[in-house]
Amino acid sequence: MDLRAESRKLSVTLHLGTSAMIKTPYLLFLGDVPDQLSAKVAQGIKDWRPDNAVGQFRMDGCKADVGLGDMTLAEAKSKGAKTLVLGVANRGGYISDAWKAVLMDALNMGYDLASGLHNLLRDEEDLVALAAEKGCELHDVRVPSVEYPIATGVKRSGKRVLAVGTDCSVGKMYTALALDEAMRAKGMKSTFRATGQTGILITGDGVPLDAVVADFMAGSIEYLTPANDDDHWDIIEGQGSLMHVSYSGVTLALVHGGQPDALILCHEPTRKHMRGLPDYSVPTMQQISDLALPLARVGNPACQVVGISVNTQHMSEDEAVAYLAGVEAEMGMPAVDPFRHGAERLADAIAAL
Amino acid sequence: MDLRAESRKLSVTLHLGTSAMIKTPYLLFLGDVPDQLSAKVAQGIKDWRPDNAVGQFRMDGCKADVGLGDMTLAEAKSKGAKTLVLGVANRGGYISDAWKAVLMDALNMGYDLASGLHNLLRDEEDLVALAAEKGCELHDVRVPSVEYPIATGVKRSGKRVLAVGTDCSVGKMYTALALDEAMRAKGMKSTFRATGQTGILITGDGVPLDAVVADFMAGSIEYLTPANDDDHWDIIEGQGSLMHVSYSGVTLALVHGGQPDALILCHEPTRKHMRGLPDYSVPTMQQISDLALPLARVGNPACQVVGISVNTQHMSEDEAVAYLAGVEAEMGMPAVDPFRHGAERLADAIAAL
Repeated sequence: MDLRAESRKLSVTLHLGTSAMIKTPYLLFLGDVPDQLSAKVAQGIKDWRPDNAVGQFRMDGCKADVGLGDMTLAEAKSKGAKTLVLGVANRGGYISDAWKAVLMDALNMGYDLASGLHNLLRDEEDLVALAAEKGCELHDVRVPSVEYPIATGVKRSGKRVLAVGTDCSVGKMYTALALDEAMRAKGMKSTFRATGQTGILITGDGVPLDAVVADFMAGSIEYLTPANDDDHWDIIEGQGSLMHVSYSGVTLALVHGGQPDALILCHEPTRKHMRGLPDYSVPTMQQISDLALPLARVGNPACQVVGISVNTQHMSEDEAVAYLAGVEAEMGMPAVDPFRHGAERLADAIAAL
Repeated sequence: MDLRAESRKLSVTLHLGTSAMIKTPYLLFLGDVPDQLSAKVAQGIKDWRPDNAVGQFRMDGCKADVGLGDMTLAEAKSKGAKTLVLGVANRGGYISDAWKAVLMDALNMGYDLASGLHNLLRDEEDLVALAAEKGCELHDVRVPSVEYPIATGVKRSGKRVLAVGTDCSVGKMYTALALDEAMRAKGMKSTFRATGQTGILITGDGVPLDAVVADFMAGSIEYLTPANDDDHWDIIEGQGSLMHVSYSGVTLALVHGGQPDALILCHEPTRKHMRGLPDYSVPTMQQISDLALPLARVGNPACQVVGISVNTQHMSEDEAVAYLAGVEAEMGMPAVDPFRHGAERLADAIAAL
């Protein structure tokens, strides 16, 4: 039985590819998507990790352009591309024949494939067979490829900061990526740690936390943010909200598995109700702070809330500046919109800890 | 692709059996386990749902006895038994040849099989093949057999009470089962809702929450505790603890998915540290109350903490009585050990809501 379990584990590993890391650099597959929004993930790769992509691959009718040079599979290969990344949303929930032909060509040329699509590469028998034949890896970043441990709660060296939101989709990933960039610009040691599929595709590594089995959630975050240099910071992408009843358990696993030294509150002030929950009003930043901090201190008694990131995309510049000043006065800590004004002041707050 | 997804779903369903409910009554398989503790789950079935079992099946060398009549497979079948339940721990993590022979005999006679073992019935090819041939179901209660929805947070009719603990394994299942019994004895409408494998085997239904994928945890609890009569109570088995860093996310999914009207605090006062976490001290009941209540009120603003269940197994009767009186005075609500003194006072507190 141990042998059988081992062989099962091995077959899963082979099926998924031999590594959890996605090899860079990428060629970004944009397919024939009908608009720019459908290429949001590819755009994120271009914006945040431009060195991770040598170019973009567009098919007839493609209406997206992430601003990288158009390349054929062969051209990108000659530039060193190792993985064809499907950083797009597909139509109708399936991989079309036209897309499939490109993916098969890519495997034939030795590309690995990586995808954030809901429908999985591993469910396409022709892709699986050809990948096995060619020794290529298929990465479905929506599903875990690692057997995560149960969390131990043991104190780890190094520092960690976690983005916690008043709601889902308020800009926690953007905040974490911008903070990572600002901290590096200051010469600090930092690593963005992805916990969702977009972040995983951008950086090539991470934990798809929403797809992890319940008992292993906190352990997967310990695995993602291991012991490190005393002056190194993991910038952990947040998920959900402690007050979003659909996903709050996922958020708490981040708070406890991440052992954060610092929390950044993330908020979107124009939202009328919790995302997907019309009967639930959005909590205040103070409410989330009051809830998150005692919970975080269970795992790390030194944890502090150090700053606020506000997504002001639905406000004018004047409104945004006035709102941020008000929040800053009320909460007594830096409040910025990292998209408008950068994350330097959040990085300063962390450096001052 | 839709067809393919459907066929995949179908094959999973067929593989697992056509129903999530385990058919009762059971014959309890005790195998050849070396001590009474190894038959803990079978004992739970006998203690809490005696009508669910017609007898016990023991092999040579079995050192456990749950106090039901010994029966052969044929005798139990003639008494109406529908499922052979493996309510035992096995040795070495595998299903022995001797056990396998009994399980094959049972399938040949038309029994379904249900198991809480770590190693799964569905991984035994001979069992799977014979079950398919005979039209029998294999229930592995450690893994979900339902595609749970995402939680909606929509207010449901009916009432719910959730057991929340200061730590793991402090008696939350026992408390919930005893409370259910006491409420029924008072003529109240109540249903124990299992969230772990032991409870699922005892009652024949439930959600194995620790094995549910993160995004669906709260939704699985909404599924488990649907709208009901206004005067009906779901008694929801708790899991983990909001302050246990390994499993707290699972607990919060119960607090938010369960939409509880009432919380019962569960505590074991002699524990030196959190279970499995030597560096973490056990919180006080007041700490858990202060943490759980605001979280529960996100989903149900009317939620109240109504009583306390203390596991006093490591205290003398005098110590237990004195301790409970102290807790009751301090917390201002009924504090009982349901194992020593029954759960009537907890049922009264709920009835008084």
